[in-house]
Amino acid sequence: MTIEAVNEAGARSPRLKLGMVGGGRGAFIGAVHRIAARLDDQYEVVAGALSADPERAGASAADIGIAPERAYADFRTMAGAEAERPDGIDVVAIVTPNHLHHPIARAFLDAGIHVICDKPISRTVEEAEDLVRAVAKSGKVFVLTHNYTGYPMVRHAREMISAGELGRIRVVQAEYPQEWLTTPLERSGQKQAEWRTDPERSGAGGCLGDIGTHAFNLAEFVSGLRVEGVAAELTTFVDGRRLDDNVQMMLRFAGGARGALWSSQIAPGHENGLQLRLYGEKGGLIWHQERPDQLRFTPYGKSPQLVTRGGPAAGSAAAHATRIPAGHPEGYLEGFAQLYADTAALIRARESGRPPDASAALLPTAEDGLRAMRFIAAAVSSSRDDGAWTPL
Amino acid sequence: MTIEAVNEAGARSPRLKLGMVGGGRGAFIGAVHRIAARLDDQYEVVAGALSADPERAGASAADIGIAPERAYADFRTMAGAEAERPDGIDVVAIVTPNHLHHPIARAFLDAGIHVICDKPISRTVEEAEDLVRAVAKSGKVFVLTHNYTGYPMVRHAREMISAGELGRIRVVQAEYPQEWLTTPLERSGQKQAEWRTDPERSGAGGCLGDIGTHAFNLAEFVSGLRVEGVAAELTTFVDGRRLDDNVQMMLRFAGGARGALWSSQIAPGHENGLQLRLYGEKGGLIWHQERPDQLRFTPYGKSPQLVTRGGPAAGSAAAHATRIPAGHPEGYLEGFAQLYADTAALIRARESGRPPDASAALLPTAEDGLRAMRFIAAAVSSSRDDGAWTPL
Amino acid sequence: MTIEAVNEAGARSPRLKLGMVGGGRGAFIGAVHRIAARLDDQYEVVAGALSADPERAGASAADIGIAPERAYADFRTMAGAEAERPDGIDVVAIVTPNHLHHPIARAFLDAGIHVICDKPISRTVEEAEDLVRAVAKSGKVFVLTHNYTGYPMVRHAREMISAGELGRIRVVQAEYPQEWLTTPLERSGQKQAEWRTDPERSGAGGCLGDIGTHAFNLAEFVSGLRVEGVAAELTTFVDGRRLDDNVQMMLRFAGGARGALWSSQIAPGHENGLQLRLYGEKGGLIWHQERPDQLRFTPYGKSPQLVTRGGPAAGSAAAHATRIPAGHPEGYLEGFAQLYADTAALIRARESGRPPDASAALLPTAEDGLRAMRFIAAAVSSSRDDGAWTPL
Amino acid sequence: MTIEAVNEAGARSPRLKLGMVGGGRGAFIGAVHRIAARLDDQYEVVAGALSADPERAGASAADIGIAPERAYADFRTMAGAEAERPDGIDVVAIVTPNHLHHPIARAFLDAGIHVICDKPISRTVEEAEDLVRAVAKSGKVFVLTHNYTGYPMVRHAREMISAGELGRIRVVQAEYPQEWLTTPLERSGQKQAEWRTDPERSGAGGCLGDIGTHAFNLAEFVSGLRVEGVAAELTTFVDGRRLDDNVQMMLRFAGGARGALWSSQIAPGHENGLQLRLYGEKGGLIWHQERPDQLRFTPYGKSPQLVTRGGPAAGSAAAHATRIPAGHPEGYLEGFAQLYADTAALIRARESGRPPDASAALLPTAEDGLRAMRFIAAAVSSSRDDGAWTPL
Repeated sequence: MTIEAVNEAGARSPRLKLGMVGGGRGAFIGAVHRIAARLDDQYEVVAGALSADPERAGASAADIGIAPERAYADFRTMAGAEAERPDGIDVVAIVTPNHLHHPIARAFLDAGIHVICDKPISRTVEEAEDLVRAVAKSGKVFVLTHNYTGYPMVRHAREMISAGELGRIRVVQAEYPQEWLTTPLERSGQKQAEWRTDPERSGAGGCLGDIGTHAFNLAEFVSGLRVEGVAAELTTFVDGRRLDDNVQMMLRFAGGARGALWSSQIAPGHENGLQLRLYGEKGGLIWHQERPDQLRFTPYGKSPQLVTRGGPAAGSAAAHATRIPAGHPEGYLEGFAQLYADTAALIRARESGRPPDASAALLPTAEDGLRAMRFIAAAVSSSRDDGAWTPL
Repeated sequence: MTIEAVNEAGARSPRLKLGMVGGGRGAFIGAVHRIAARLDDQYEVVAGALSADPERAGASAADIGIAPERAYADFRTMAGAEAERPDGIDVVAIVTPNHLHHPIARAFLDAGIHVICDKPISRTVEEAEDLVRAVAKSGKVFVLTHNYTGYPMVRHAREMISAGELGRIRVVQAEYPQEWLTTPLERSGQKQAEWRTDPERSGAGGCLGDIGTHAFNLAEFVSGLRVEGVAAELTTFVDGRRLDDNVQMMLRFAGGARGALWSSQIAPGHENGLQLRLYGEKGGLIWHQERPDQLRFTPYGKSPQLVTRGGPAAGSAAAHATRIPAGHPEGYLEGFAQLYADTAALIRARESGRPPDASAALLPTAEDGLRAMRFIAAAVSSSRDDGAWTPL
Repeated sequence: MTIEAVNEAGARSPRLKLGMVGGGRGAFIGAVHRIAARLDDQYEVVAGALSADPERAGASAADIGIAPERAYADFRTMAGAEAERPDGIDVVAIVTPNHLHHPIARAFLDAGIHVICDKPISRTVEEAEDLVRAVAKSGKVFVLTHNYTGYPMVRHAREMISAGELGRIRVVQAEYPQEWLTTPLERSGQKQAEWRTDPERSGAGGCLGDIGTHAFNLAEFVSGLRVEGVAAELTTFVDGRRLDDNVQMMLRFAGGARGALWSSQIAPGHENGLQLRLYGEKGGLIWHQERPDQLRFTPYGKSPQLVTRGGPAAGSAAAHATRIPAGHPEGYLEGFAQLYADTAALIRARESGRPPDASAALLPTAEDGLRAMRFIAAAVSSSRDDGAWTPL
Repeated sequence: MTIEAVNEAGARSPRLKLGMVGGGRGAFIGAVHRIAARLDDQYEVVAGALSADPERAGASAADIGIAPERAYADFRTMAGAEAERPDGIDVVAIVTPNHLHHPIARAFLDAGIHVICDKPISRTVEEAEDLVRAVAKSGKVFVLTHNYTGYPMVRHAREMISAGELGRIRVVQAEYPQEWLTTPLERSGQKQAEWRTDPERSGAGGCLGDIGTHAFNLAEFVSGLRVEGVAAELTTFVDGRRLDDNVQMMLRFAGGARGALWSSQIAPGHENGLQLRLYGEKGGLIWHQERPDQLRFTPYGKSPQLVTRGGPAAGSAAAHATRIPAGHPEGYLEGFAQLYADTAALIRARESGRPPDASAALLPTAEDGLRAMRFIAAAVSSSRDDGAWTPL
């Protein structure tokens, strides 16, 4: 929502009390979550288990202004203690390596605390299924931060397709190339590279799980279609690497659309090249993450158009996720913040018994997380089976 | 500073206490300042005179969580009261229309409170000169939010030129086209258009003052050169508009460089097209605000290169202003936030008697504001004098 | 070769006498071949069987200045008669629909006349094998106009990779999307659409044979690698269409590289979007046909560079195919003309017993045509076999 | 005209007999003219005075297939002899350095021979005036090769503006930066650099005359407006250079439009960066020479559109100058060839007494050449007069 409109909309409710698990000194995604939480002024971080090492946990908590008595070294202790406190946290953000997502989410859901969880939801399909059940049972909000769904023009693309502006979708080309693992960075001591290439902490997919799932999630989110089968080829190019670093895939969507997915972490020249291209009977659409504020839209038989965030063709879904005028770039942090803002609205609605805003329907759920785990499992299975078409 | 590095750097100091004048319901730039202040977690807004209308001032303050007793309707009252309080504000942000910048800044400087002031610094050269003196006398920090200087790649461009990578600069082409005033929007009741085309509130320049000054400031900031004369042609194309909406200008820089500046608010197709191009004896450099994370750099005799924020060629100035990895776009709000973060560091250094960080030297000052007012005056004078070369 | 250098190189030999089969009134590619032949002034069209309809053949010949007695209605008659004439043609250009390529090429090779043949070489693998043998037996020049290999920056890309600038190639992404068959254009009477969607005239591949083969040829030409297997999914989206209009494919290259190929004729927004992207251990490279004069080259760990035709980083292979300075765009016709110019040089060398220039090694051969036919056959077979990996 | 349409249109007339003055071994623009003449198959070069040195003239003629008896060393001899021959040339192309354009053009016009002359028309306003009179008196066709007017999308831009699609034009920004004279190349023996920086051979303008005039011509051609005054600053940055290498200019157009013109030959990063941007009451338009096949068109209040050569929004003027389908790039040589093709049509119409085609009105004339000379004179005068507004 534009910041003028936010102003006119009147009083901000008191900030939600946010806890965090993971995200201590030296972490990346935890700090992203904290900026995202602050940006639209809906949260205050008041408790955390930022590290499993008690000393580091305490120091990290002090860094970000958490009171010492709410700096925990253990997430279970934190869940219990915060659930007991009259001023306990409303919601927890889980920003650990992947293998811990499931147990932490379970602990907080079981304690009656809303959860914001970094993706992927878990390491296995089974864990994901367990969380889907746990969320349903808890009645709590569970949001998975597939953050690219927070970009205004991604939401606009979804809205255009849903409104039929492209006609029936025929082809979906999703890709996510990066360059950062071109060399064996994990052997240099770089923490991010270490755990992301370690099957114990990442799960069965390397590049596949880390970024291929983003491309998969986005393809389904925008197209409104479901992938029903994949034929995949996972490759590890860097000697000694324990997980795939390049993924080729053909896609079959329910209803007959076809597509491809390429994700790679050994593609020099691509910093964060997530791109989605969709083609329907009536038009085509291209979105690229490195230029997130525009869509290239070609209604068949007309000139290509550049649809911009804040521009004349942007609709209500884009407007909802837009803070500042066209031509003033919003980026990755704003897209991430949108998930936090919409989650705050959903939590407030849930707490007060009001029906949620329309934006709540756009928030990635535990079911979306489960789909991504099935996608990983299907791709790994297909690749082992020499590329045989494998259902999700 | 990358967010991992921030984490490693250890404990955040307690948030600075920020007051705000202007920026009530329906305002734009005030909300931008508040996001900028929050983003790097260095400030908390605790007091405000958000509107001259007491009722609106109170409601607006409540919206953003200001306690009722610190919601003022009058900036002088606020300056006095906050100076008295033991928990009074450390710094005030001035986000009113232009004509109020000078009296408000004076009031807070005189009360011993640091000032962050939206650009332009004032309506006239005389007021700007007065503020330069007042700042010097006060010993307080005064930062003018020429926000485009906060972009990492703008700072990197400055650093490259300062290091001689382009050789002696010969030509500087600055431009800032927009489209939003193509029609007489100010007669439709749009508040932004109203005051920005009103000489009583904006000063002697319309498009010139609103955005031409950004282009001027950026040209000097990046090139390290001083404009010593302008030959200008100001035009008003929209019937009945009271200030210029298109500005052509030739520039002479001290030392012999030449250039041009074009700013326009009637240029359909440009949302916020601030662009700076510099050419030296050894190379050329292009930066465009709508794609702020990259520079196009051509060392003469070699292929053009795309230097990216977070990429391998970005230097220390860019790194200081970089939060997240290459390819994850940062935008307008992050650039604006950089001024707030660097101002916080400068205030903390000043308060503690420590020497300021290197970044402090990049913050736009009252002197920069005065130069911009002289630039406006020279351009208006030149245009009235049929384009005669006019010194700054 | 730059046109100044051509001048300095001294006297042009007399023009080669060119015959043409196909390319009468209303045809497209024949006219392209004629411009390509004229552009570098190495050929004069002096005979033709431009249409199988005698009246149309005569009128079409008159259009382009062919003497009436050398306007044939039948290619076999033409081959015989021209072989007999003391001033008979040196070389024939074959520009008919695909199914006629084989018999015509055979007729002229058997008559001892050099052949320039539009792609694909034939309708079937068997016909292609026959032509490979016929070429070898004839001792004549046979060039297949995979015209995209004539672009200077395509040749430069090949040269860079051959020189090891990218290191060992790991991933090759080839794509060729177009939009022109989004609707059932072949039912509107459009001639091009008619025969290209007709298996009798086109062969077993629709989009696959028409443009997928260009992408395949280019991937091998530039990478220097051989595709050893494909897993393909051919789809026909337009109701009633008789051949595929969208092709997804995974690729395995000899030596371990992996890749994907997408070609589509139902992708709104793409006019002629042939693109090749290659990633090696040391760098990445991108070329796009719609901006043919540049390569985007990223040496891993450095900034991306824009290598331009005529620019400082272009090497000898690019220079050979460059006529005019950097920044003065050369396009499709010039790239096509390069094949004609190099073929002229090869014919002159062959005729005079001189060894051919280096450029001769770049000309697409009958063997290349045969590989493309095997590629089509493998893709069709794989798709019928539910995407099973199929060797070429 | 698309090449299929050319085919359908039926018989090509016999080639026009073309003579050439200048363009011998080592020359650049002469070879461009010859390709342009060949491309659409309307001319055959049959005579020439390619060099003032008899030996070089003979050798150069032999290079391009001119019979020895029609290889002249002196243009006056050539004009006389060719006028006498029953098979004498129909038209001459003048491709010498600038200072010879006037005497050569006079000689051929006086001999009753049509003239195609490279720009600029002359060295002085007086010479240009003389040629305007001579053309009128001769009744012959005189075409000045301001070649950028031959680009399809330049003509389409003109057609759009003429049709009112942009409304009344307010602002015209023309620029033409190059990098090739960043260093004192003229002292290295490079012929092009030598004569283009020599006032004896080039005239009063350096960069101004060489490329500034192209930008000026294009601005008037596309906008349909006339520049009525300029305020200019000419600068020479390279030590020892005898003419300007950077030009800044403000423009006033009849009717009230305003604009700027920048041309530079010391701007690293620009190969041939001719760009034209026009803004009217209803929309804006951008064309860039390095991507000539597209226009960026923004109807005010709508999304920007990419209008492409051969695409759905291209009109009749573009279609006339289009040979091949959208997405198959046409470039500099094709644009140049368009002037030759249209000149051939005009000569044929003139010779046969038929009214000329619509395209004839687009061909640059002697009057256009005179305007460019007045533009040069006004800019030089303004610059000497410290940038005073100077009428054309």
